[in-house]
Parts: sequence; structure tokens; C-alpha cells
Amino acid sequence: MNNHKINQINTYLTQLQQNIASTLSRLDGKKDFVQDNYNDQHGNTSCTWVIENGAVFEKGAVNFSHIHGKNLPKSATAKRPELAGKSFQVLGISLIMHPVNPFVPTTHMNVRFFCTDAVGDDTPTWWFGGGYDLTPYYGFIDDCRHWHQTAKNACEPFGTDVYSRFKKWCDDYFYIKHRQEPRGIGGLFFDDLNDWPFERCFEFMQAIGDSFLPAYTPIVEQRKTHDYQQQHKDFQCYRRGRYAEFNLVYDRGTLFGLQHGGRIESILSSLPPQVTWRYNWQPETGSEEEALYKTFLLVKDWV
Amino acid sequence: MNNHKINQINTYLTQLQQNIASTLSRLDGKKDFVQDNYNDQHGNTSCTWVIENGAVFEKGAVNFSHIHGKNLPKSATAKRPELAGKSFQVLGISLIMHPVNPFVPTTHMNVRFFCTDAVGDDTPTWWFGGGYDLTPYYGFIDDCRHWHQTAKNACEPFGTDVYSRFKKWCDDYFYIKHRQEPRGIGGLFFDDLNDWPFERCFEFMQAIGDSFLPAYTPIVEQRKTHDYQQQHKDFQCYRRGRYAEFNLVYDRGTLFGLQHGGRIESILSSLPPQVTWRYNWQPETGSEEEALYKTFLLVKDWV
Repeated sequence: MNNHKINQINTYLTQLQQNIASTLSRLDGKKDFVQDNYNDQHGNTSCTWVIENGAVFEKGAVNFSHIHGKNLPKSATAKRPELAGKSFQVLGISLIMHPVNPFVPTTHMNVRFFCTDAVGDDTPTWWFGGGYDLTPYYGFIDDCRHWHQTAKNACEPFGTDVYSRFKKWCDDYFYIKHRQEPRGIGGLFFDDLNDWPFERCFEFMQAIGDSFLPAYTPIVEQRKTHDYQQQHKDFQCYRRGRYAEFNLVYDRGTLFGLQHGGRIESILSSLPPQVTWRYNWQPETGSEEEALYKTFLLVKDWV
Repeated sequence: MNNHKINQINTYLTQLQQNIASTLSRLDGKKDFVQDNYNDQHGNTSCTWVIENGAVFEKGAVNFSHIHGKNLPKSATAKRPELAGKSFQVLGISLIMHPVNPFVPTTHMNVRFFCTDAVGDDTPTWWFGGGYDLTPYYGFIDDCRHWHQTAKNACEPFGTDVYSRFKKWCDDYFYIKHRQEPRGIGGLFFDDLNDWPFERCFEFMQAIGDSFLPAYTPIVEQRKTHDYQQQHKDFQCYRRGRYAEFNLVYDRGTLFGLQHGGRIESILSSLPPQVTWRYNWQPETGSEEEALYKTFLLVKDWV
């Protein structure tokens, strides 16, 4: 992979990080993202930007990293076991926002580029990955439609089946197997993307990255002043347990970070600020909490 | 493995569960363990006993299970890959107590027996495992000494090197690799134990099971009325994050349960009641919180 292409991706991602952070901190109105930026002599960069105890966001992170590795871990390439052990570069942004208000959904977004370095006769190999998904505590059908419609619009120029394929991949990926529950209402997920030419794949990653704020911020605007009681906060903290379970047991990015020995506080900045685990808790029949399970935590077509 | 031996183990474990639960609920003084007991027609038994919102214990579980499985998962037998896929039985008790007072340590105890069923020419294979470890938030050297001395005394009749071998195994096992931190001050851990005759191994498991209450309850008695402030509770909730990370990322029993499709609420009853994750939090120099890291979260000889 030539340096010009990597620089292009680098430039796009660092601008996207800047844009997302400034928009979300404006939306918060109280707190800014605190920046922890690191560079080392091997060309590795890690920019962990975290907001805590904001008016709208209880905790959130939008992290950029550009890592050079000597030994591609298996978790990075489930589909390409033959690449495990190769030297590689990965550039990406990973975001998770945990709102204060239980009526505002948690969200996650990620866009990333992997390439392995050529060694001997090997052909360099690259691929893009990414997506975003939404995890409401108290759902609104309009919000889910808006979320998925925005995702669909972003995919449309790349083929009529792209949204449905990557929507399904998202449903499959963000599934908490041991709970037999989706993590939320889904969105998009793609990985190992290189079946279009490089430029086209890069454009697709940009389309996904650029459509994140238009997908999420109108929902935050709409719900951030919704009245809530302790009962709603309790349910949010309880449901955040599922998020922690997913990230620590299944999430490929987290496992990659743990295996690769990355900066732990950056990798685990995704974990929720306050979580409760209650034994065998069940929502009451007919409650707002039960509605999450019955209406929203189902694999379905939202648009 | 003949049924008589399995019945003996079953009897011991169910009595131990009863004894531990009644002692700890007496110690709590406010709440009893609520019992969820299940049997099915295949001879599987699961008795999940949980205490929540007690005066001393914020959440705790002492669970007995006797499971017949058709397909031994890899996580059950890291040292014996050739047994993966065999039908098996496992009987065990698993306990975790999360106290209210941050000056009372969290503890975990587990004793278990595995055997694979004979198939064709195979020889039946069995082993014992177990141990206990202690996770203080604010440490006391006397408590650590008492804990390890009790463990050492329990091991002594089985050989002079038993305590030191299983103490080291505990230090190695309860290590949070991605944090480069021990989970607590250790104790005992053993697995794949069958190098003594069956009766001797069973006696050892009983010695470990029987020494748990004498190891833990004097510490609880001593510390349960210790004064504490919000700052101490905050640190306890923060440190509980490490516990959740260990159990979801590394714990062999939890992974076994998740892979084997056991009853999720029983398997995850170990998770702490209330947890916080703060980004890149560090204790102040010279603080009581820093003392945990500097004096207690180190691999060292306590007796």
C-alpha cells in the first residue's frame, strides 16, 4: 500500500474525528472532549478524546489511531487466517457515546482501514471496515426509522443491495449470543471490504463516516430534554450491563486491542460510566421497559 | 466414574452450599439467600442462591450445579485438548460475595469435580479443581495474613509444597493481563488435580471447601462496621470494573458457562451490583487508594 493512499485516509479520519468531536461537544453544551494524543518514533499515533460528566453525554469517546504492528492478531482477520502473523497497519476511528438521559440512545461508530505490508512474494492486502449501530433504552419508532433511512441513503450510491447486506451483517454481529438478544436496533456493519476498487471502497468508508452525525444528532436533539425519573436511570444502568458484556466478550475491536497490547484506557474508554447487574431482573408486563424487548430488540426492517 | 463416588461428592457439595449460605446470611443479619433451584429429566441440577441488598452483602451468590454434558468445551480442559467433545459430568460450587462496605473485601470460592464418561475403549478421566481468592479495595495486612495462613493450614496435611504451588497458580490465574494487575491478593487455585488417589483428591477438595468460611468470615466481622464515605464507595465501584473485566474476558468458569449455554443468570450472578468505569483514573499520590496498588496488588508472600 503506497504512502499517498495511507496519507489520504489519515487526513480524512483526523478531520472526521475533529468534526464529530466539535459537533458533539457543541450539542453537549457543558463539556469538551479532553484530548490524550500520543505519537511514537515508529509512526504510531493514538488520539483518545473523551468527554465525561457532560450535560448530554455522561461518558463518550471518539478515538483515532494509526498503528503499525508486527504480528497481525487472529481477531483482526477472522476471514483471512493466512494473514495472521504478518506485519500490518491499521487506521481507524472508533466512537461510543453514553448519554445521561435514558431516552437518548447510546451509539457506536467505527471506520477503519487495514493493510498488511508486502513481504517477499506476497501481494499487499488491504480492506476497509466499519459501520454504526444504535442502542436505545426507551425506543421511538421514528428515531429508528430516521437512523436506518440515513444509513440506507448513505449506501444507495454504492448499489441497491449494499444497505440490506450491511444491515444484516450488523444484526448478526451485534448479537449478544449468551443473552439471545440483539445489542440494539442495529444499523450498518461491514468488514473485509475490498471487492470494489480501492477508490470506491474509500469513498464508501467516507460515506459511512459522513452520515454518522446526520443519523445521530437529530435523535439526540429530539430526546435530550425528555423527562425522566430514577426508574428510567436504573433501567439505563441495568441495560448498560449488556453493553459491557458485549464489548468484553465479543467485540472484535476490543479483543484486537487486548490481544495486541494497545493502550488499555483508550480501548476500554468504550465501557459505560455506570453499570448495574441485578440478578434475574425482568421487566413488568406492559411496562415501558418491557416495550424495549417487545418492540425494539428484534431483528426487523425499519425502512 | 461410579455413581457412588459422584453421590458422595454431590452430598458434600450440597451440604457445603447450605452451610455457607446459612453462615453468610446470619452474618448479613438482614437478608437471606433467595433460592432458584432447577432439575431436569437428564439429571441436571442447578441451585442458584443469591443475596441482594443485604446489610453486609450488596450482592452475592453461592451456586451449586451438577451438569451432564455431551460435548466438553475446550475452555473446560485447557490441558487436555484430547477430551474436548467427550460427554462429561461436572459438579461444583461457585461463590462470589460483593460486600456493601468498601473496607470488606470481595471474595470468590469455587470447588468442582469433572469426569468424562467412558466411550468405547477410552478410560474414564476425572479431576478436581477449585480454590479461593480475596479482592480488597482498602487492604489490611492482618487480613491478608489471616487469609493466606488459613489457606496454608488447609493445604499442609497434603504436602509441604501444596500451598506454595497452588498459591502461585492463583497469582498466575487471577491476573488481569491487559491491566498488568493482579485481581487481588490471591489465595489458592488448583485444577486438573488427579495425581493423588481419588479419595485423597476428594479430601483435599473438602479441606479447601471447609476452610473457606474460617478464612473469610473473621475478616467480614472485623471490617463490616468500618466507617466509610462516598469517596470509598466510589473507589469500590471503580475497582469492581476490574472484577467485571476479569470475569468476562478471562474467567474459565464464566467462559465455560457461556460456551456451554448454561443458565446465563446463574453464570453471570458473579458480576458486581454497581460498577463504574472512569477514563484513565489514577489514585492520588499518598492516598488510601494508592496504597491498594502499592502494598496489596503485588505478588508476594503473605505468611
